[in-house]
Amino acid sequence: MSYRIQSTPRKDGFRMPGEFEPHAGTWMLWPERPDNWRNGAKPAQKAFVAVATAISQFEAVTMGVSQSQFNNARQMLPGEVRVVEIANNDSWMRDCGPTFVVNGTSARVVDWDFNAWGGLLGGLYFPWDLDDVVARKVAEVERVDSYKAPLVLEGGSIHVDGEGTLMTTRECLLNENRNPDKNQKEIEDLLADYLNIKKFIWLNHGVYNDETNGHVDNICCFIRPGVVALTWTDDKSDPQYEISQENYEILQSITDARGRKLEIHKIHQPNPVLITEEESRGVDAVDGTLPREAGDRMAASYINFYLCNGGAIVPTFDDEHDKPALQALQALLPERKVVGVPAREILLGGGNIHCITQQQPKP
Amino acid sequence: MSYRIQSTPRKDGFRMPGEFEPHAGTWMLWPERPDNWRNGAKPAQKAFVAVATAISQFEAVTMGVSQSQFNNARQMLPGEVRVVEIANNDSWMRDCGPTFVVNGTSARVVDWDFNAWGGLLGGLYFPWDLDDVVARKVAEVERVDSYKAPLVLEGGSIHVDGEGTLMTTRECLLNENRNPDKNQKEIEDLLADYLNIKKFIWLNHGVYNDETNGHVDNICCFIRPGVVALTWTDDKSDPQYEISQENYEILQSITDARGRKLEIHKIHQPNPVLITEEESRGVDAVDGTLPREAGDRMAASYINFYLCNGGAIVPTFDDEHDKPALQALQALLPERKVVGVPAREILLGGGNIHCITQQQPKP
Repeated sequence: MSYRIQSTPRKDGFRMPGEFEPHAGTWMLWPERPDNWRNGAKPAQKAFVAVATAISQFEAVTMGVSQSQFNNARQMLPGEVRVVEIANNDSWMRDCGPTFVVNGTSARVVDWDFNAWGGLLGGLYFPWDLDDVVARKVAEVERVDSYKAPLVLEGGSIHVDGEGTLMTTRECLLNENRNPDKNQKEIEDLLADYLNIKKFIWLNHGVYNDETNGHVDNICCFIRPGVVALTWTDDKSDPQYEISQENYEILQSITDARGRKLEIHKIHQPNPVLITEEESRGVDAVDGTLPREAGDRMAASYINFYLCNGGAIVPTFDDEHDKPALQALQALLPERKVVGVPAREILLGGGNIHCITQQQPKP
Repeated sequence: MSYRIQSTPRKDGFRMPGEFEPHAGTWMLWPERPDNWRNGAKPAQKAFVAVATAISQFEAVTMGVSQSQFNNARQMLPGEVRVVEIANNDSWMRDCGPTFVVNGTSARVVDWDFNAWGGLLGGLYFPWDLDDVVARKVAEVERVDSYKAPLVLEGGSIHVDGEGTLMTTRECLLNENRNPDKNQKEIEDLLADYLNIKKFIWLNHGVYNDETNGHVDNICCFIRPGVVALTWTDDKSDPQYEISQENYEILQSITDARGRKLEIHKIHQPNPVLITEEESRGVDAVDGTLPREAGDRMAASYINFYLCNGGAIVPTFDDEHDKPALQALQALLPERKVVGVPAREILLGGGNIHCITQQQPKP
């Protein structure tokens, strides 16, 4: 009961809602590949269980899992979490999964092309064939129709306010390893058609050393329409300083689709988080997969949190900035319960809580 | 959202409804193993598409499919059919799939042990680990709780009238390759607990040369409570004659859970259907999988049909008995549309339309 629709969401009156709008539930994928997740992904699996458990206080969670990990995932996850078989190359539901669009009465899926964050030009692994079918499989389980969008795009590279504004980064969307045949205008036209967007906010860069080529969801997000949070550092010697400063200036200078100036909140990043010797040794070395070298700085940011019905699930790093970040977000989200979840093991795989979740909005 | 319940359906007020009661939908599994299905399962896949298409006139169909066949199945099946990933060892949803039980308001799943029709004592292939998880995966997709029943049982080895009567065969349920540690009484007690059964009808044998060890669903079924259909032959030299005759006498001699005598309708079988040289050559030879030898007689029977909402999907064999069988069943099922579907390619795999389907009743 899932048809491919040969129109566009805009023509059909569908739009992508903001993450802060009501959800029908959350989708995730179970981590397992030993060339990305240390120690056979066992520590990461525990971290994913903690995230799924935290979200399931607020809304229904479905975990997609390969056949070989089905029994283990079913055993490790609480009964509230639905476990369905979905083969995958890795566990980033935000990026390979569906983008849901809604009208007043129903939901549909936008199914983007996926090339593992850069394909053969710096992509993070090969192949990515299973990831590229994940969105369609989600649509099938939910009996939701889908649009095939002719654009390489990961869900983490965009944020929307649900009122016509989309925020992204040039570092990612204009990267030659995504859509080399399309210029900025052509990409905007496709996003306008498939997400019902009227105004684009282009940041230049994402978080320092972010292997996704600067996904916006690690550096800046909408708290609600007209209000954004930006990762920040007061340390002028940190390479992140200049990036955040530039984004702050861009955000100050523009208006959104409704003509509003943005209210910008800075969330100070954790101290630099480096891969340890032991962590690096736990990862299988495989040609063609991004290695995890000891001493490498990871792109740690509190902005990579996830909004769910009545909740906000925020990564923590056992860092002095954890508590101020949680307090600042709680102050910005008084209608939600802010829940911190230790996320170092997720970060070690190259992303964070927002990257491993995907909301299914309520129509 | 799928819990294992540590009680039994009988204690909780759940029962297995008759197949003729209203369905929420139908589950199937996509054929692919080349050591059972000839020519890489391509002819069988077309036959399964025809069955799924026929059923989907009447109710929702979900096809489970391995990751490697997902794209092909999605392409071959009509859009009305939902396609979800479910790894499997072969495609007999009736036998490895869930048995649904209902009360007035909800449905649950009974998850039996599965050993590929006999385990290491004459089972049809090895391993069967993926099949054994199919029932649980269906329960997960549907967000339905499940009972784990401590009994090796295939869905095709039982038929119920929904009013407390269960019909089965000694050849299968008492076979030493199923539950060697349990006697008839112990098996009855478990079926009573898990399906809410009060009366057992024990036939001795199933169809001649049936590789399932005589599944009842190929030889006799309930049309409705109090009414059964039995495969038949008028040819006294056919080894099937004696089997059908004996079952007829058993059925005449007993009463059901409500104390009714049964109304018995004979449906004449097709002429003997033999595997051809060409068909045999199309099957991969693999140690441990039942070979498909040229000249072998297949267990062809019209009784292996499937009842769905307002319909009956009946196998046909390009045989002179097709038309009389369809007419007889239509007369027995005046409230349904009887649809014949050519089923030789399914029969070549060792079963028929009932074996590849599983009803999900409406609670």
